Amino acid sequence: MKIRPLGDRVVIKKIEVEETTKSGIVLPGTAKEKPQEAEIVAVGPGGMVDGKQVNMEVKVGQRVLFSKYAGNEVKIDNKDYTILKQDDILAVIE
Amino acid sequence: MKIRPLGDRVVIKKIEVEETTKSGIVLPGTAKEKPQEAEIVAVGPGGMVDGKQVNMEVKVGQRVLFSKYAGNEVKIDNKDYTILKQDDILAVIE
Amino acid sequence: MKIRPLGDRVVIKKIEVEETTKSGIVLPGTAKEKPQEAEIVAVGPGGMVDGKQVNMEVKVGQRVLFSKYAGNEVKIDNKDYTILKQDDILAVIE
Amino acid sequence: MKIRPLGDRVVIKKIEVEETTKSGIVLPGTAKEKPQEAEIVAVGPGGMVDGKQVNMEVKVGQRVLFSKYAGNEVKIDNKDYTILKQDDILAVIE
Amino acid sequence: MKIRPLGDRVVIKKIEVEETTKSGIVLPGTAKEKPQEAEIVAVGPGGMVDGKQVNMEVKVGQRVLFSKYAGNEVKIDNKDYTILKQDDILAVIE
Amino acid sequence: MKIRPLGDRVVIKKIEVEETTKSGIVLPGTAKEKPQEAEIVAVGPGGMVDGKQVNMEVKVGQRVLFSKYAGNEVKIDNKDYTILKQDDILAVIE
Amino acid sequence: MKIRPLGDRVVIKKIEVEETTKSGIVLPGTAKEKPQEAEIVAVGPGGMVDGKQVNMEVKVGQRVLFSKYAGNEVKIDNKDYTILKQDDILAVIE
Repeated sequence: MKIRPLGDRVVIKKIEVEETTKSGIVLPGTAKEKPQEAEIVAVGPGGMVDGKQVNMEVKVGQRVLFSKYAGNEVKIDNKDYTILKQDDILAVIE
Repeated sequence: MKIRPLGDRVVIKKIEVEETTKSGIVLPGTAKEKPQEAEIVAVGPGGMVDGKQVNMEVKVGQRVLFSKYAGNEVKIDNKDYTILKQDDILAVIE
Repeated sequence: MKIRPLGDRVVIKKIEVEETTKSGIVLPGTAKEKPQEAEIVAVGPGGMVDGKQVNMEVKVGQRVLFSKYAGNEVKIDNKDYTILKQDDILAVIE
Repeated sequence: MKIRPLGDRVVIKKIEVEETTKSGIVLPGTAKEKPQEAEIVAVGPGGMVDGKQVNMEVKVGQRVLFSKYAGNEVKIDNKDYTILKQDDILAVIE
Repeated sequence: MKIRPLGDRVVIKKIEVEETTKSGIVLPGTAKEKPQEAEIVAVGPGGMVDGKQVNMEVKVGQRVLFSKYAGNEVKIDNKDYTILKQDDILAVIE
Repeated sequence: MKIRPLGDRVVIKKIEVEETTKSGIVLPGTAKEKPQEAEIVAVGPGGMVDGKQVNMEVKVGQRVLFSKYAGNEVKIDNKDYTILKQDDILAVIE
Repeated sequence: MKIRPLGDRVVIKKIEVEETTKSGIVLPGTAKEKPQEAEIVAVGPGGMVDGKQVNMEVKVGQRVLFSKYAGNEVKIDNKDYTILKQDDILAVIE
């Protein structure tokens, strides 16, 4: 199954990082804050969105930071994704 | 009876998926979250909407993801539909 | 008495449908949800509305679905009407 | 004393209708809902309002329906008037 | 001391009217509703305001009605003034 | 240390006026309402701000009235300043 | 790891200043108000943002004042940064 976002939307998959505390205890992903890091899975075509021209500047495979709580969470083939507007992507991590 | 949406509106019919839990119990549709998946039933003509040109990019028969709680629920010939703006459709599933 | 809506406004008369439950009991209109179906009674001239050109796409006599709670309810010659903006009409039923 | 509204504003005088109940009791104006019917008393010049061209389409002496609670109530020479924007006038009654 | 308002702002001085009740008692200004009548004391130059051209249509000395609660109250040389946008002036009284 | 505001922003220093009550008691600045009078300390370059051309009309050294609560309070070299948009300046006092 | 902000966004690193009270006690950074001073770490390319042309006027290395609570806090390589829009930067300190 393939997901094709519309307009200036982007599909991302959150990256949950395992983390070791100073005392050496591993915190599993669920014990931490909502992650803000993600990989881009699909990119919409851009074009005229709400009467304004939007050019897509992110690409599939990029690792990005995004606004916490932005977008809609969806489940496809039992996996969790987030669909958000490109404007909710803050930065690319290189 | 035929329903013809105005402007950039789209009529969708939600797809309620029966789901089997890991233990094998079938959860009927009503026991789950509001579905976000739907089939497009009718598409408005687009054109000038609120002073902006809107081109319709979805087609009847497509399977789509839409914003939870978006749009208006209506009952036609005793069946439930949702009428929403094309901009509330997040992605097409292929 | 004739009512002539201004700008992109439309006057509608709600259609209250009597409905029979499965057990055969007739539910009078007042026992149900607010109706969303209406007939168009008068259509404004359109034109420049809030700095934007609006063309009227509905006609007197059409049966339409409209946004629940949209518009203003008015009483003319002791009959109830609703005056709303064309944009609050979701779809035409044919 | 003469009142001259600015921009796209209109001065109206509400029409309070005495009404007889089915049992024959006369309800004075104050016992009813806020009236929505009014006569136009003065019309502003229109022109550029908030960066948009507005043409005045109502005239002094017309009987109109207006949005309940719209506008500002003012007292001139001990009489009550309402000053509202032309866009808050829903329809002309003929 | 002279006060020169910027952009589309206007400085007004409220007019507090003494009023006699039907029984003959004089109500001093402070016992009544906030006054809505004022005299224009200074008028800004207009011009481009928030990206829109605004022409000033009121003049110093005019008596006007203004939106209750609009604008900012200021004290200059121990006298109370209100500075508001021209758009908060409803009408000129002649 | 020098502070250079961006866009249509202006840096002001509030003027706190000592005031004598009718009974002769001096009210120190802290016992009164938030002051609305200030001197302009720095002026941004103006230009395109949020897609609109803004020309700066105030100058360093002018005494101005500003919207109570507008802007951001900052501390530079242990002194308190407020940075606000030119549009939050109501009037120049001459 | 390098962080590249999108559009008109800027990455800043807050500057926490140790401060000595009049009595000589050192207040560590955490005992004070949220700092408003920061150094610019990365600057987005600007360009068309929400249908408007934005030119970037700040540079990496500049010391700036920014709106308290503006932007999103992110953690990169275990260090805290804030990503905000250039418009949330109030002034450059020189």
